[in-house]
Amino acid sequence: MITSKDNPHLKDLKKLQQKRFRLRTGKFAAEGEDLVAAALSAGRQPETIFCAPDAPPEFAGHERALIVDYDLLAGACALGSGARVVGVFAHLAQAPVGGGALTLFAPGVSDPGNVGTIIRSAAAFTDSPVCFANESADPYSPKALRAAMGTTFTHPPQSDSQLADLRGTIVALDASGSNDIGQLELAAPIVLAIGSERDGLGSELIEAADVVARIPMRSGGPESLNVAMAATIALYELSKGINQETTK
Amino acid sequence: MITSKDNPHLKDLKKLQQKRFRLRTGKFAAEGEDLVAAALSAGRQPETIFCAPDAPPEFAGHERALIVDYDLLAGACALGSGARVVGVFAHLAQAPVGGGALTLFAPGVSDPGNVGTIIRSAAAFTDSPVCFANESADPYSPKALRAAMGTTFTHPPQSDSQLADLRGTIVALDASGSNDIGQLELAAPIVLAIGSERDGLGSELIEAADVVARIPMRSGGPESLNVAMAATIALYELSKGINQETTK
Repeated sequence: MITSKDNPHLKDLKKLQQKRFRLRTGKFAAEGEDLVAAALSAGRQPETIFCAPDAPPEFAGHERALIVDYDLLAGACALGSGARVVGVFAHLAQAPVGGGALTLFAPGVSDPGNVGTIIRSAAAFTDSPVCFANESADPYSPKALRAAMGTTFTHPPQSDSQLADLRGTIVALDASGSNDIGQLELAAPIVLAIGSERDGLGSELIEAADVVARIPMRSGGPESLNVAMAATIALYELSKGINQETTK
Repeated sequence: MITSKDNPHLKDLKKLQQKRFRLRTGKFAAEGEDLVAAALSAGRQPETIFCAPDAPPEFAGHERALIVDYDLLAGACALGSGARVVGVFAHLAQAPVGGGALTLFAPGVSDPGNVGTIIRSAAAFTDSPVCFANESADPYSPKALRAAMGTTFTHPPQSDSQLADLRGTIVALDASGSNDIGQLELAAPIVLAIGSERDGLGSELIEAADVVARIPMRSGGPESLNVAMAATIALYELSKGINQETTK
């Protein structure tokens, strides 16, 4: 059992809270049993699984498990509230760019919770990857991983995308759009472009778009929706024409 | 200028981070210029506006402004990153229960960010109040207020609602639903019931519903959406039959 805070494995785990260290090492930490279980069941091979002494046997018995004093493990976690299980994984291979029936391009989303929620919603409506850019929050930060609820492992996002690499009819989502997102009848492939929390879509993206669409809202309400909400509604609407719902 | 951390106004401000103190005093704190501006422009009368020495004159010049040392103010805030302006307000009068064309009933949402996001989305699609219950996260917590982006002031939520008080066709949102939420054709008034993050809708709510509807998702994706995303899509769909979009 690891009982020293100077243990090098533990020190590296703590450093994985920093984006720079994640980028340099190509690794990230998934905190909590649910997330680690989702990674394992998606076939991801952990580099290390840190386990508190009372961690469930399916984690503590893993060949790459390291048992750690409870307080030391909590101290190396970003999200607090004492995860009993933390897995370290290599960055996931990015899905190939350009394919897919409905691709979300979200270059400017800066809140990690929004990034994670968008990954989760996109996975519900399309099997194409979500494309972020270098300005976006890191999808492998603890908060983004938690908000994505394991879908990061089944639908690895692109993190350095450019619109020019994506193939399809480009639909830009903007309050200025003259088209109601629910009235579009577009065939795949579609690229849905959404803006940042504070500034929306830049004029470049709007000009590059084939269609600028808006989500109709009642008058007298707020000027805008949360960016993850807007992306979710747009993905939901655009997927209607593409997906065939399968009964379970 | 307040320069002592023992100042009673400042001590009360800090205590407003606690739900119990908010309930006992009937007050809450709105942190940040954007939120305080939204409250003022919605006609809310502040009890106090705490301002850092460099706060903009529209706040620092208010008759109820108190100027506070920058670090002391930051120390009394919940959200960190040093708001220059914090307003203390009395709890808003709750909107009357039971009226409204499309009412959201969300008794079990426990994450304050989700509560705030739901208030914001609901304001975009309906002028009826959002109805929470005592088990929900407090809509007046700092995180919920921030996520609602000022819509809490224009659309004060109900915080101790019961389904029996609400009038309308009850649509329960659940993955087990046999109706596609986008295919319903319902006339107002409608009550949309959504469940909690972890447990979904209880069997009681499902039994009380006139219609149980699901959001169609592709097979192979995640089992569920974030509760705020699901509520947003459902409000968006149900509002289509009710709202008349007004061109700006």
